[in-house]
Amino acid sequence: MEADVPLLVPEVNAEHIALVERQPTFERGGFIVTNPNCSVTGLVLALKPLVDAFDFDRVHVATYQALSGAGYPGVPSLDIEGNVLPFIDQEEEKMRREAKKLLGRWSGGIVPSEIEVWANCARVPVRDGHLEAVSIPLPEDTDPDEVASILSSFRGEAQRLGLPTAPERPVLVRPEANRPQPILDRMAGEPERARGMAATVGRIRVTDRVLRFFLLSHNTIRGGAGGSVLNAELAHRRGYLG
Amino acid sequence: MEADVPLLVPEVNAEHIALVERQPTFERGGFIVTNPNCSVTGLVLALKPLVDAFDFDRVHVATYQALSGAGYPGVPSLDIEGNVLPFIDQEEEKMRREAKKLLGRWSGGIVPSEIEVWANCARVPVRDGHLEAVSIPLPEDTDPDEVASILSSFRGEAQRLGLPTAPERPVLVRPEANRPQPILDRMAGEPERARGMAATVGRIRVTDRVLRFFLLSHNTIRGGAGGSVLNAELAHRRGYLG
Amino acid sequence: MEADVPLLVPEVNAEHIALVERQPTFERGGFIVTNPNCSVTGLVLALKPLVDAFDFDRVHVATYQALSGAGYPGVPSLDIEGNVLPFIDQEEEKMRREAKKLLGRWSGGIVPSEIEVWANCARVPVRDGHLEAVSIPLPEDTDPDEVASILSSFRGEAQRLGLPTAPERPVLVRPEANRPQPILDRMAGEPERARGMAATVGRIRVTDRVLRFFLLSHNTIRGGAGGSVLNAELAHRRGYLG
Amino acid sequence: MEADVPLLVPEVNAEHIALVERQPTFERGGFIVTNPNCSVTGLVLALKPLVDAFDFDRVHVATYQALSGAGYPGVPSLDIEGNVLPFIDQEEEKMRREAKKLLGRWSGGIVPSEIEVWANCARVPVRDGHLEAVSIPLPEDTDPDEVASILSSFRGEAQRLGLPTAPERPVLVRPEANRPQPILDRMAGEPERARGMAATVGRIRVTDRVLRFFLLSHNTIRGGAGGSVLNAELAHRRGYLG
Repeated sequence: MEADVPLLVPEVNAEHIALVERQPTFERGGFIVTNPNCSVTGLVLALKPLVDAFDFDRVHVATYQALSGAGYPGVPSLDIEGNVLPFIDQEEEKMRREAKKLLGRWSGGIVPSEIEVWANCARVPVRDGHLEAVSIPLPEDTDPDEVASILSSFRGEAQRLGLPTAPERPVLVRPEANRPQPILDRMAGEPERARGMAATVGRIRVTDRVLRFFLLSHNTIRGGAGGSVLNAELAHRRGYLG
Repeated sequence: MEADVPLLVPEVNAEHIALVERQPTFERGGFIVTNPNCSVTGLVLALKPLVDAFDFDRVHVATYQALSGAGYPGVPSLDIEGNVLPFIDQEEEKMRREAKKLLGRWSGGIVPSEIEVWANCARVPVRDGHLEAVSIPLPEDTDPDEVASILSSFRGEAQRLGLPTAPERPVLVRPEANRPQPILDRMAGEPERARGMAATVGRIRVTDRVLRFFLLSHNTIRGGAGGSVLNAELAHRRGYLG
Repeated sequence: MEADVPLLVPEVNAEHIALVERQPTFERGGFIVTNPNCSVTGLVLALKPLVDAFDFDRVHVATYQALSGAGYPGVPSLDIEGNVLPFIDQEEEKMRREAKKLLGRWSGGIVPSEIEVWANCARVPVRDGHLEAVSIPLPEDTDPDEVASILSSFRGEAQRLGLPTAPERPVLVRPEANRPQPILDRMAGEPERARGMAATVGRIRVTDRVLRFFLLSHNTIRGGAGGSVLNAELAHRRGYLG
Repeated sequence: MEADVPLLVPEVNAEHIALVERQPTFERGGFIVTNPNCSVTGLVLALKPLVDAFDFDRVHVATYQALSGAGYPGVPSLDIEGNVLPFIDQEEEKMRREAKKLLGRWSGGIVPSEIEVWANCARVPVRDGHLEAVSIPLPEDTDPDEVASILSSFRGEAQRLGLPTAPERPVLVRPEANRPQPILDRMAGEPERARGMAATVGRIRVTDRVLRFFLLSHNTIRGGAGGSVLNAELAHRRGYLG
């Protein structure tokens, strides 16, 4: 969260990469770009097209985070077998701060977004794939099909540039009543080389001016190594790498 | 949800039991009282003292519901092992409707509460104990310790009457960073005969006028058989049983 | 287990396929070949080279069988979450009978093997991959490395014919102290199209004339659909299909 | 396994406690008694009456051991969620050595038993309760009901002395097709204060001179703290404590 280090999700804030030019090492060819937190990465993929389309600034999120998010050895099995742990150190604060930065406007610098992400983060006995339950008050009712269409048709700079690891569609919308699920949806993303790079959204509902949905993304691919590769591809295309 | 059948949680709306006097079978000694949904029972135990103390009407909830909530045989193991299912049929609608009724004022009839419960319900691979992540916008900031104190000191009609199955304190507040947990807290409740009858709340936070906490209650004890016994004890004490 | 219906594992008893010529429908072009039980399939892949090399006829096996072996909906989650079920209907008897048939000598008909498989079968909360603990009294001590070498170098008719779905090596031997594991080894098999078709053996020990090891094979690939494809490939190569 | 330190299971080898009199510190009032390994404790409760009744010396065992057996933090959740680990350091050797000592005859010293326990030990995603699959070659066929009767009627010194923590029956035999199970049977033992102190045996079968059954015992009660208390009660009753 250093002021001159961009947090990058190439579909969401590719223009923030310009920040590296202000890093003291940039002249000598060195610079730093970082991945955001694995929970916020999937979330902003869905929030980006929504904040562009609707007028809201409050997002209530509860997470169902996978074991691999804690690294290895991570969570002792006696703590999590048949259990849920309603605490992940620093996670909720990171989601709030990083969402503001990632969704911030670029105007010769990052103007933080007004968005407030109120998270309740929990660990569940699942190997991979962070599921999130999202609830967003809107100023007026909206057709869920319109929300689905906005999410499905979203394309970011990663897609416009055709970055190799970019999924064709960053957000997939499932129409089934019981999706997304970690087991079934964590490897979402086309083509083959972008597997695990798309977020999946399902159960889109709007009731009395509250939009609710579930979202899933792979925490160690999109939220980890795959995200880093995509960032490097963006840096390369922008001429920052060699 | 029939108009003349009370949904009862004796700590929350004991006075609604008067509704049975309007049931067509009441003159002949028969009447019906029902348990609310197992997810809403624990929730209203915490919401009741909060709505009495603060001015709010929006509650965003995400649930982490146990396998036993689906009965037996219930959820096939292949659907839930190492997975989360983001759908429980009718559950979200029931939570909304029943919270309005349970928290409704009695004025010769039930005046539904203004409260809106926006739920995202999911099943997790846990045997017993429904965990809920709660996020409530408040009109102004409040000291989390005050919230804790209000919850801990809450006593309802069940306690005033000393019903045998009533827990001494309906809501227990845990100060630890990582509670409540299904494995550790589902059997909360004192004395011994009230085990599983108390809800446990933890991780109370207030940030920029949003109150967040986690809540746990035992779905088949407080939200099932134990709740029915407590309702019968209330009915007996009020003279409705023989 | 009909006398004229071959149970086939092409690496083990390819010659039994001749049995189909005795089926009443064979003249009209129809015949039946069946897969053996999913627990015995992996086991006989390891037993075949061992019975050819050593003189034994008693095999004590305990199984750790995956959920998918029970089909869908299969085992209720409340029965198996955090539990082990020490019973799988008919499984132990099938393992004994089918091992005798599969390892039987062909002499114009099947001469059942003397082998006795004494199984204790249990279901564990694992999605895919049957693990088996094997204990075999031998007439004399043997070098575990020799056992490893015999298993690793085993090739059957499926390999000699180069059947497309046949793994290059039907039995892989892992040297690590803690393998095979369902999560890590169930998809064993090279090349790519044979993934899940190889059995993995580990922890080979010989102490005072008792050989012990663990074995894993994928119950729905090698023990299911993949096994059927391999049988069909054998039938085709032998000229039984069109 | 020091020569003058008794491994004790009071139902099995209470007389071995005399060994403490040879310990160098005994004269000064100090002595050491140890619990055996948690896997072998349950096993010898069943083997003791069987070796007294039948003529055998080979026992093939496969274990399904609980997470709590590894202590805390113990097994990382990423290693065991939806998986089985076929390795527990030193466990198989300990089971063999300790069974020989525990079942050894006392004749002014311990004469090790001829029994050979051939174990394959594995960890499963279960919180508490070690399940074991046992397979024993016998010299001749035996009625399974007789085996059940021998196990059920077994009483040891702990019962004869009426030690407070001793279960009335050290081995319970379940007639159901699918028992014992960790979830259902780990707390076996009467009266209340002896819960978790009895082993449970089920699925007793004898086929062609091989006896098979499943056995379960609570690894941290009978195989841990409860076993230590029972040993102390024996030492006290024998006059070794104050």
